[in-house]
Amino acid sequence: MTQFTHPLAPDRYFDPDPTVRRLARELYATVADLPLICPHGHVDPRLLADEHATFGTPADLFIIPDHYVFRMLYSQRIGLETLGILRLDGEPVEVDHRKIWQLFAENFYLFRGTPTGLWIQEELATIFEVTQPFNASTAQPIYDQIAEKLALPEFRPRRLFERFNIEVLCTTDAATDPLTHHQAIRSSGWTGKVLPTFRPDSVVNLDTPNWTANIAALSGVSGIHVHNYATFIQALEERRSFFKGMGAVATDHAAQTAYTTELSPAAVETIFQRALHGTATPQDAITFTGHMLIEMARMSIEDGLVMQFHSGSLRNHNRLTYERFGRDMGGDIPIGAEFTRNLQPLLNQYGNDSRLTLILFTLDETTYSRELAPLAGYYPSVKLGPPWWFFDSRYGMQRYFESVIETAGLYNTSGFNDDTRAFASIPARHDLWRRASANWLAGLVARHSLSDADAGDMIIDLAYRLPKRAYHLA
Amino acid sequence: MTQFTHPLAPDRYFDPDPTVRRLARELYATVADLPLICPHGHVDPRLLADEHATFGTPADLFIIPDHYVFRMLYSQRIGLETLGILRLDGEPVEVDHRKIWQLFAENFYLFRGTPTGLWIQEELATIFEVTQPFNASTAQPIYDQIAEKLALPEFRPRRLFERFNIEVLCTTDAATDPLTHHQAIRSSGWTGKVLPTFRPDSVVNLDTPNWTANIAALSGVSGIHVHNYATFIQALEERRSFFKGMGAVATDHAAQTAYTTELSPAAVETIFQRALHGTATPQDAITFTGHMLIEMARMSIEDGLVMQFHSGSLRNHNRLTYERFGRDMGGDIPIGAEFTRNLQPLLNQYGNDSRLTLILFTLDETTYSRELAPLAGYYPSVKLGPPWWFFDSRYGMQRYFESVIETAGLYNTSGFNDDTRAFASIPARHDLWRRASANWLAGLVARHSLSDADAGDMIIDLAYRLPKRAYHLA
Amino acid sequence: MTQFTHPLAPDRYFDPDPTVRRLARELYATVADLPLICPHGHVDPRLLADEHATFGTPADLFIIPDHYVFRMLYSQRIGLETLGILRLDGEPVEVDHRKIWQLFAENFYLFRGTPTGLWIQEELATIFEVTQPFNASTAQPIYDQIAEKLALPEFRPRRLFERFNIEVLCTTDAATDPLTHHQAIRSSGWTGKVLPTFRPDSVVNLDTPNWTANIAALSGVSGIHVHNYATFIQALEERRSFFKGMGAVATDHAAQTAYTTELSPAAVETIFQRALHGTATPQDAITFTGHMLIEMARMSIEDGLVMQFHSGSLRNHNRLTYERFGRDMGGDIPIGAEFTRNLQPLLNQYGNDSRLTLILFTLDETTYSRELAPLAGYYPSVKLGPPWWFFDSRYGMQRYFESVIETAGLYNTSGFNDDTRAFASIPARHDLWRRASANWLAGLVARHSLSDADAGDMIIDLAYRLPKRAYHLA
Repeated sequence: MTQFTHPLAPDRYFDPDPTVRRLARELYATVADLPLICPHGHVDPRLLADEHATFGTPADLFIIPDHYVFRMLYSQRIGLETLGILRLDGEPVEVDHRKIWQLFAENFYLFRGTPTGLWIQEELATIFEVTQPFNASTAQPIYDQIAEKLALPEFRPRRLFERFNIEVLCTTDAATDPLTHHQAIRSSGWTGKVLPTFRPDSVVNLDTPNWTANIAALSGVSGIHVHNYATFIQALEERRSFFKGMGAVATDHAAQTAYTTELSPAAVETIFQRALHGTATPQDAITFTGHMLIEMARMSIEDGLVMQFHSGSLRNHNRLTYERFGRDMGGDIPIGAEFTRNLQPLLNQYGNDSRLTLILFTLDETTYSRELAPLAGYYPSVKLGPPWWFFDSRYGMQRYFESVIETAGLYNTSGFNDDTRAFASIPARHDLWRRASANWLAGLVARHSLSDADAGDMIIDLAYRLPKRAYHLA
Repeated sequence: MTQFTHPLAPDRYFDPDPTVRRLARELYATVADLPLICPHGHVDPRLLADEHATFGTPADLFIIPDHYVFRMLYSQRIGLETLGILRLDGEPVEVDHRKIWQLFAENFYLFRGTPTGLWIQEELATIFEVTQPFNASTAQPIYDQIAEKLALPEFRPRRLFERFNIEVLCTTDAATDPLTHHQAIRSSGWTGKVLPTFRPDSVVNLDTPNWTANIAALSGVSGIHVHNYATFIQALEERRSFFKGMGAVATDHAAQTAYTTELSPAAVETIFQRALHGTATPQDAITFTGHMLIEMARMSIEDGLVMQFHSGSLRNHNRLTYERFGRDMGGDIPIGAEFTRNLQPLLNQYGNDSRLTLILFTLDETTYSRELAPLAGYYPSVKLGPPWWFFDSRYGMQRYFESVIETAGLYNTSGFNDDTRAFASIPARHDLWRRASANWLAGLVARHSLSDADAGDMIIDLAYRLPKRAYHLA
Repeated sequence: MTQFTHPLAPDRYFDPDPTVRRLARELYATVADLPLICPHGHVDPRLLADEHATFGTPADLFIIPDHYVFRMLYSQRIGLETLGILRLDGEPVEVDHRKIWQLFAENFYLFRGTPTGLWIQEELATIFEVTQPFNASTAQPIYDQIAEKLALPEFRPRRLFERFNIEVLCTTDAATDPLTHHQAIRSSGWTGKVLPTFRPDSVVNLDTPNWTANIAALSGVSGIHVHNYATFIQALEERRSFFKGMGAVATDHAAQTAYTTELSPAAVETIFQRALHGTATPQDAITFTGHMLIEMARMSIEDGLVMQFHSGSLRNHNRLTYERFGRDMGGDIPIGAEFTRNLQPLLNQYGNDSRLTLILFTLDETTYSRELAPLAGYYPSVKLGPPWWFFDSRYGMQRYFESVIETAGLYNTSGFNDDTRAFASIPARHDLWRRASANWLAGLVARHSLSDADAGDMIIDLAYRLPKRAYHLA
């Protein structure tokens, strides 16, 4: 990140022990400026489709789209309406972004010790050249400074993409998405590499709200009339092929648990017909998702798309905020996870197939050492994704390294991904990972458990090569 | 604690890294002498009701009432009878407290590396000015020294309360308790602030031994004849009002799990009648407790009492010791806990209400990062209590800070409480918390993840302000 | 290990903090040369029965029998056949051990950061005096060097046993094993102490493949015709007595979970008869194992054999490799464990009996602080075994110390065991434990939480005395 004016401490996140710090600093220096590989995230491709797109106001950039931010404020009894979060019923919410920004600044102390607090301080400093501390009294001048910069051509999304040195950015896109924005990016002549990712949850998970409408959309976009399981599979395969043609390297799947099961053709058809007739049960939805995960593994073997699987979140835990503000509003709460038994049907079917890459993510850290590292350290198809969501943090990463690598080894992991919709946070998140990686390796070298040479190789793997290999990004 | 002669290392519990240690020492120094806030504990109010009460012998003070102590000795095949623990059947137990003390001293090496061992060494040194190591050969002189001091007026409970600089001490009291001792304290003119806490488990949990007798006592003490659910609720509300009038700021609830559920009026009446007729099933008890937790949240919203909830302990695991010695004798063993699904009914009902403060405690550390921090970092009503029971320890605190704060932030936690019936251990427990807090903050500062100024503010929050705010202690 | 030429860093595995390192080095020095106590492992007694036995080729020693090694290679898409692992169907596998060794060397980078990688480097250096790094270009000269040494008389198993300074080595032997090799060792006049361990899983777990044949073998070897539960128990008691006569000090039991239950005589007879007639159900097997664990505790009380219990592994997770290569081939994956409720029936029956020693092992680290430490710190019979299998590692040990000792105390643990079939790895594994122990104690001393004198005593307990006491090894 040397292109940034950087008032932040150059040794941040490193352990204070002088030996570890010196080694960490040296390791980090070798990767600090490597391009960013972003194989999984939620950036809106629209931002990059139009050369003239802008990020809006400072509140549009930092607060309103970022549930990491507003969930913390909400926990301290600040209404989401006062933060400008739109209500589904159209009732009025705060529209004065300066007021929203002021409220954020007054409560910024809540983020002490959190990664969100650290990322935002780093973004203010490195992207917007803010040099004062961010608090109630500096809120308005800082707002002015950011707003002024956001109005400049060099702060448009494509320019920041280039400035951030992003080598590749994968978005997450519904199976029914026509990928219009990705088409626009490709046909614009801009050289930024932005790839779609195939995410079929809304047609695969029968309990998705509007599932019937989603199936209709799938029929429409694929040109295959989905009226039974066979045509459903055909339509999905058509979409995967289309996504692949548009550059996709991976699929992404979410389910509440990692349950997989193999249904007979008759059983799966029966459930699918019940779903088409609106009579599927909650158990049907669970069973069908479990079956479809195995189908998706089969398709990955056939078309080579890497299969990502995220589970363990109980979505929309809070009825009130879900009904008032909708989904993805910070109200998803993790639950205990189980992979050993749940994945056995899938792995017995396809886990030994070298053509499959299945990358697993968890919100239950107990599964790192108990299940995921033993699975990743054994099955040829399984890799472990980076610490996810709440664990994309300094201590989250430390626990990950210490719990996973002794059993799985480094080369059954897949490096970092930022998983973010907060575009401006991308460099800060990767930088934290690179620093935490360097610090972990430095600790091993300082304990004479790893040679300098090995550490020097592994830091490049962690920062750059592992995600490229895992996601087949040439 | 500067009023104590203190032979213990001034840097104890701090990390050895010189940078961290220096910062930790500085942070700690700013809070070392702050008054103690004790919002949750099990000190017997009788000790403070009578100005002339004494602690008895050294064995009465250190061994006989403290299951942390005698469970360890029991694990090494030392019979509870030989430690003077009373049997329910009245069979003889050791009454020579010097012999009990000698046995304790001979086996004190068992406590190496445990918080109990550290607390006791600190108590001996700071309260009783013991300067020798405590072992078999020093046991009797140390006994003499402690006994001599305990006979002095300045070692009576009220004097130690003052010397410990306790600003407020909350006890835990059954819903049916007439609070006679608290009345005595209030009417004595003594200025020590000792507040009751409303704990209705013995009438709310239908499977409590003697539930029927407890209901009769509830009728008696409330003046409301409890013969159906409506009168049961009235009686509870009357008692809450009485406790509040006596200074209570909180309620406390225990259940094996965090299960909550909302019953219809008819369903709850049916179960309650079964209970009154002695025909409630084990499932009835679970359902009823789950329902009552939601009722208690409602009452907290109405009367403003903070709601504490402790779950996850399988009580009286050992049939033999339970039958011979009774409850709370060290035989409670934790079980896996689940909060995300279990609390959803309660939180959907009242979790967004800013008038509710629900403080959660766990004995399953896996729930820190997976469930409790995400819940506390989102719901306006939820706060996370300090590391509880077995985790009231140096490494327990470190795991807590590192697992919780990155997601929940500091301000969704509630500071420390000592949760103890061992009165003399109160300063040592708070001191460990203050030192562990300072050490954690120092580590963040040393890693350039927190400013000095923020750390200087947060240490006061941790040591003093957070519990006062969370418990509405003005 | 001073008898070895040792190019490895003398401070390896110690924290880099100078204070901790100095203390750790001093503590470690006092135990580095103590004899090795190996109370639990899987060394083939045949190696030690014949004075002229050899270890075969370097691949025979390091790769083919060690699932820690080949599971990692397999996870990176290296077929087990190419590593010389025998197929059950007799299809050809690689027989050129130089080629196998070369493949291993080329992929040795996969073990960076793993205990297996560290052990192997230490074995190469200390046992075989290899001074180059191990990689593709050094593979063949290193093969030559090892092969040359393995041909020397002083590299025969008995000589290495002596050189490793093993005071006692316990093997693991089926209940039906006639202990021929142990007989041979005893009658050979060699003074190495090699003891059998009674492991009755294959007759106690009804779902064992070939259970009927195993029962027939049990009848044959015990001389008691097993035709009902009573004769089954008699036969087991006869075998225990035989093992004890052959020097055994312990039994070992494995089950998927820690479930225990007490069956009536009629119920257990019914299940046993179903098993004899080949009609036992999967539930029967679970129930019967749960009952037999209590029976085994009773027998331990009667004959004094220490009872070891290992649970929490889902065996043979991968159908393909299980069917092709058989059991114990790296395909066992841990599952979540529960001890508090599951062990309650056994502990209520025998947990307070001082004659019982029940040593528990887990693959679910969450149970350390939540269940196992509270149980071990309370029940006179319960001790906690060392970190097991995947957790026999630097960070695994650190988590164990930090999670267990504050609650259980040190003296309710049982020291280290290497649990290995890789004979040459024994010194490296014990050395890692001794270093990790010293480092943990040094950290406590440096934090002024333990005196130098106590630490100096505890390091000897950890390295030597605890396993001797726990296993009654005089």
